[in-house]
Amino acid sequence: MADYRVPREDMRFLLNDVFQVPADWQQMPQLVDMMDADTAAAVLDEAGKLAEGLIAPMSRAADEQGVSFDNGVVTTPAGYKEAFQQLAEGGWVGVTANPEFGGMGLPKVLSAQYEEMLCSADIAFSLYPGLTAGAIMTLDLHGSESLKNTFLPALIEGRWTGTMCLTEAHAGTDLGIIRTKAEPASDGSFALHGSKIFITGGEHDLAENIVHLVLAKLPDAPAGTKGISLFVVPKFLVNDDGSLAERNAVSCGSIEHKMGIHGSATCVLNFDGAKGWLLGEPHRGLAAMFTMMNYERLGVGIQGLGAAERSYQNALAYARERLQGRAGTPQQRTENAADPLLVHGDVRRMLLTMKSLIEGGRAFSTYVGQQLDRAKYAADQAQRERAEQLVALLTPVAKAFLTDTGLEATIHGQQLFGGHGYVREWGQEQLVRDTRIAQIYEGTNGIQALDLLGRKVVGSGGELLRPLFDDIREFIAAPVSGWQTQYLVLENALNSLAGVSEAIIAAAESDANVVNSVAVEYLHLLGYVCYAYLWLRMATVAEQQSEQTALTHAKVKTARFYFARILPRIHALIPAIQAGSEALFAYEYDEF
Amino acid sequence: MADYRVPREDMRFLLNDVFQVPADWQQMPQLVDMMDADTAAAVLDEAGKLAEGLIAPMSRAADEQGVSFDNGVVTTPAGYKEAFQQLAEGGWVGVTANPEFGGMGLPKVLSAQYEEMLCSADIAFSLYPGLTAGAIMTLDLHGSESLKNTFLPALIEGRWTGTMCLTEAHAGTDLGIIRTKAEPASDGSFALHGSKIFITGGEHDLAENIVHLVLAKLPDAPAGTKGISLFVVPKFLVNDDGSLAERNAVSCGSIEHKMGIHGSATCVLNFDGAKGWLLGEPHRGLAAMFTMMNYERLGVGIQGLGAAERSYQNALAYARERLQGRAGTPQQRTENAADPLLVHGDVRRMLLTMKSLIEGGRAFSTYVGQQLDRAKYAADQAQRERAEQLVALLTPVAKAFLTDTGLEATIHGQQLFGGHGYVREWGQEQLVRDTRIAQIYEGTNGIQALDLLGRKVVGSGGELLRPLFDDIREFIAAPVSGWQTQYLVLENALNSLAGVSEAIIAAAESDANVVNSVAVEYLHLLGYVCYAYLWLRMATVAEQQSEQTALTHAKVKTARFYFARILPRIHALIPAIQAGSEALFAYEYDEF
Repeated sequence: MADYRVPREDMRFLLNDVFQVPADWQQMPQLVDMMDADTAAAVLDEAGKLAEGLIAPMSRAADEQGVSFDNGVVTTPAGYKEAFQQLAEGGWVGVTANPEFGGMGLPKVLSAQYEEMLCSADIAFSLYPGLTAGAIMTLDLHGSESLKNTFLPALIEGRWTGTMCLTEAHAGTDLGIIRTKAEPASDGSFALHGSKIFITGGEHDLAENIVHLVLAKLPDAPAGTKGISLFVVPKFLVNDDGSLAERNAVSCGSIEHKMGIHGSATCVLNFDGAKGWLLGEPHRGLAAMFTMMNYERLGVGIQGLGAAERSYQNALAYARERLQGRAGTPQQRTENAADPLLVHGDVRRMLLTMKSLIEGGRAFSTYVGQQLDRAKYAADQAQRERAEQLVALLTPVAKAFLTDTGLEATIHGQQLFGGHGYVREWGQEQLVRDTRIAQIYEGTNGIQALDLLGRKVVGSGGELLRPLFDDIREFIAAPVSGWQTQYLVLENALNSLAGVSEAIIAAAESDANVVNSVAVEYLHLLGYVCYAYLWLRMATVAEQQSEQTALTHAKVKTARFYFARILPRIHALIPAIQAGSEALFAYEYDEF
Repeated sequence: MADYRVPREDMRFLLNDVFQVPADWQQMPQLVDMMDADTAAAVLDEAGKLAEGLIAPMSRAADEQGVSFDNGVVTTPAGYKEAFQQLAEGGWVGVTANPEFGGMGLPKVLSAQYEEMLCSADIAFSLYPGLTAGAIMTLDLHGSESLKNTFLPALIEGRWTGTMCLTEAHAGTDLGIIRTKAEPASDGSFALHGSKIFITGGEHDLAENIVHLVLAKLPDAPAGTKGISLFVVPKFLVNDDGSLAERNAVSCGSIEHKMGIHGSATCVLNFDGAKGWLLGEPHRGLAAMFTMMNYERLGVGIQGLGAAERSYQNALAYARERLQGRAGTPQQRTENAADPLLVHGDVRRMLLTMKSLIEGGRAFSTYVGQQLDRAKYAADQAQRERAEQLVALLTPVAKAFLTDTGLEATIHGQQLFGGHGYVREWGQEQLVRDTRIAQIYEGTNGIQALDLLGRKVVGSGGELLRPLFDDIREFIAAPVSGWQTQYLVLENALNSLAGVSEAIIAAAESDANVVNSVAVEYLHLLGYVCYAYLWLRMATVAEQQSEQTALTHAKVKTARFYFARILPRIHALIPAIQAGSEALFAYEYDEF
């Protein structure tokens, strides 16, 4: 496997040149004194050193060793504990956390790039700090002062870690039917009874304590999703002075044996009267948990991006080194008996498909990160609201599209290696296995698509599309010379997207199954249109740079590649969406 | 995991109703007395019992246990040895082999269905008899009487197994640069020196002897692929009476640790002066090996089909049993707190995508199998030649398209299980891992696409497309009432395929990179058009059956689904192909 190198140049190009994020910061009262382009570069350099030098080198061995379970005790792979401590000491667990409790308070647009590095280095490892960051945010937003003071400082320091406990054996996507119960105790706490599965980082040896955020039902809970409450349940109870008290009645019953992310402990957690505290309002736990879920969802999307980048770096190195077959034209040929793989059109097709999806995805995650920051920090209320709408629309797209294209990219990166891509020691097949989970957890990509098309697009009567469409139409209104064809193609694609959106909104009035039937294709259509918009932004900005580099040249060429070879995928999606639900619901049960 | 059930009804429908294979047999002098519909059904029933009852139940445990290596000795998973012996005793190793040496001599169209069963049961296991069948065929076609008498009977009995030894560490796709040498000895044999990698079944404990077919270079060999010869190198030398003599100087140096097919031993084989015999003409070994490769390639395609079928059966069972979420309309709802997954549009999308690709793929493999039999057995020379052309054209499509769609199908089948799909015990992730190799070995799918577009289509100036196009145009010429729209769509798709074929043939005259740049998309385009043709054939035949069943109803509906939701993919492929090589070859090396 090639050494992982953070794509610093592309990250800076996006931050400073394409999205001009430092100009945003100057308008944000909470960030203006703290953030500028140099600070951002310095922060990312530090993070990059950890990802490159500390975490990435251990990912292959961690996959082989995996997590072990012995009578309730979970041991993580060699090196994880030391790496996590080093990360914590650098303040990276609390990278976006509230400075009031010791967090760095960095904007999301930077943390998204930091998260990408971590995921390129090792998705399995990244989940421990990632889930902790989500728990920190949820506690900070919904916790009482007492809960925040008890739990936030140690979580932010990385002395403790966090989890989210949602799924039960019979209830995954459908949380309305969970059975875990919370009985009120006389001291204001609750006793939790039940069993949760698929709990990432539910038990491990990286930290002194684990803070579980647990969905459960109060005795008087209404049925369904409106009767779910959220509780904080620590592995060890905490004394008033912050020291650890006795072990709580929560234990790890077993761990899962999975396709990938072998370094991540996926636990069955049994709550046998475990002591917990209500977080937020009774029966409003799902809304509070969705704070965390939405935060995690961009992060999960970034897992697909990070793995794809790692796979690309390996594949490109291999394509340069591996001599196999002859180039198409004599001019391309070397003096060896065979030429590097990179001379072959089909190898270039795989690499450029990866590259265009990865860099398009990085631009997309930066775009969403910028909107998350505007929603949180912008001085102007109208700008905050507009950014919130964009985030609401694009969060499911980021989660699903970055991971769907991430899997595609890692599969190309594996294929390019031929048989070596199937052998574990080369690392490419691990990236496929590790990425695959990101399409499944934190709400499957099918559920993301339903959220996008059902709740967001149809649910708003199309209103939630407007800020995105306005952004793209404003961009299209001032086409840059030399790119007229692509501007026109983008405009047509946007019109098609608008057209099918209207058609589905209309059809949904009389067809309860249409959203469910075409949501995944719709999400992909929207994703490809967004990438087209972002590629054209990147290319035109690249052309205008005073200093022309390999990166700016490549941006221009990859934009052309994306429009020529990838964007045409929308012509498959549009008629499939237009076909609606009919072909799916014609079947009797026994005809499947 | 659901119990695997052979899709007997669909297999018979294809054999008897759609392709009317028994009518073919009546015109084939070598088969007329041996084969009819009842015999075929009886043969497949017997094979089905072995696949369902003997092999499928051990696949999950075999994946966990894997193959072990200890100082040159390879041990296969528990149960493999007994299962292989039982298969051998039933005559199934020599299922298509020459009856003169003890084979069953069954037509390929039947053996393709038998192979599908074996691959659904366990791809890893299927490789041991599969490679042996390929070695039998190569020996039968190219061996001297002496070699045939020495090796064929024991191979056909399944007392010995076969391998194909092509790849070396530096030479995978590019066999012209292999280094293994064969020195002539005074007794007419040769001493082989060299090292081969990725040798499936190169060493194991299933059989008394292993017969390696090895590519190597004679001392006077010209450079490149025209200097490669083929040798028979047994693990144990053979006495004149057929008994085993001393161990030959070939040994297993190690085995690979792979993403999947853990029950298959993938070996490094070291030849240290191993004794071998020339098979076929000197320097013509690659052509002889391609006999085996071409035979294997349909078989490798069928691996994708078989795994997809198994994944579908599991996914369908899960979609019926798992209660999660509510149906779109009140009429669909059950009395439970949640409805079966099968009510959801997105679940149906995944299942029907799988079903339409699997049954389309089964029709395609049956179609190719029928052509293979016509090429071998037809009394009429013109029919034989026409069938040979179809086989030449469609073999790379079968290998690549069945495995690309096979991976897609197994990924849907995994996704449908949510988190459980990622956990090993449920079996769905294993099917993804096991299928993935089929896109890589026996010539990567990129190489198959190059073979199709470069050697077959452009190489023949388009002539090799004609028998396929004639078949489809003849079918289109008599449209069945109720399907006019689909006939028109098929005709347009065929015209598009013909159009881009002509355009590429013309472009290739001046652009050495165009074939290499668009071959994969072209192969997919041709695949989707073939499936559309076969779906329309299946649907119209199904409608005409006197007895209407769940299968015939489903065929009609799935054909409509395929045209509505899958075939539109060609609208993404066509413009991507038309974009040619330009976007790929604009890059300098440092711009990737």
